[in-house]
Amino acid sequence: MLTRIDHVGIACHDLDKTVEFYTRTYGFTVAHTEVNDEQGVREAMIKVNDAGDGGATYLQLLEPTREDSPIAKFLARNGEGVHHIAFGTADVRTESADIGAKGVRVLYDEPRRGSMGSTITFLHPKDCGGVLTELVEAAGGHPEGAEPVTDR
Amino acid sequence: MLTRIDHVGIACHDLDKTVEFYTRTYGFTVAHTEVNDEQGVREAMIKVNDAGDGGATYLQLLEPTREDSPIAKFLARNGEGVHHIAFGTADVRTESADIGAKGVRVLYDEPRRGSMGSTITFLHPKDCGGVLTELVEAAGGHPEGAEPVTDR
Repeated sequence: MLTRIDHVGIACHDLDKTVEFYTRTYGFTVAHTEVNDEQGVREAMIKVNDAGDGGATYLQLLEPTREDSPIAKFLARNGEGVHHIAFGTADVRTESADIGAKGVRVLYDEPRRGSMGSTITFLHPKDCGGVLTELVEAAGGHPEGAEPVTDR
Repeated sequence: MLTRIDHVGIACHDLDKTVEFYTRTYGFTVAHTEVNDEQGVREAMIKVNDAGDGGATYLQLLEPTREDSPIAKFLARNGEGVHHIAFGTADVRTESADIGAKGVRVLYDEPRRGSMGSTITFLHPKDCGGVLTELVEAAGGHPEGAEPVTDR
């Protein structure tokens, strides 16, 4: 079950400048920053609101750290803008298997590490109406659904 | 103050087919459908989750109803995919005036009618890091902030 929009991923050339835009223009604050070498990105998570499932909804600002990263390729092709949307779930493995069984291509054989210790996978945009779609299980998530996800 | 991601707007060629994708693949349900003649769209609001401000977060699936609508032009240029993101606020007039005063172009002189009786405006994507950005005040919103927004 997908229980929230976890984040909207936004590709940018200059992370510091983009963080400055979102904090100065809207008054949002930065919840977290990290470098993800596997994904080839430097990123900032801007928390927008809490969600009804105990999680929260963020903007994920993404700057490429190398030319061959997916974000660098996206920027070269499309320029800055929305790169993907991510849905939160308590169990990314079960969810991605269920979705894959419906004929949607899942991009990773095994889920990988996402922001803030989360576990993630992606769905092929051509199978999702042009939308690159991510599934996120927050760190500290409880696959059994016994406890709410409160710690990311 | 912007208090939630109200929705992510997704442009599609075939609304019925796209609604079918989101309901069948993820188990989401349609909260509302309408035709907005001013915007030149037929749309479906897919509720994903409640938000901490008393509102909710949706996917807004958008099919053009005429060739000269912004969504038709977007589809011709980009194909299907994410068209805009929308932030929820209790007072779209004050919020857009404040943001305009920071140098971001507001696209409407006066807010217009959005989904489900809401009041909306848009910010220029070139001033927002490539992201077409909407501000939404839900129907039944309370500009004074005295009561939570619970009815859309």
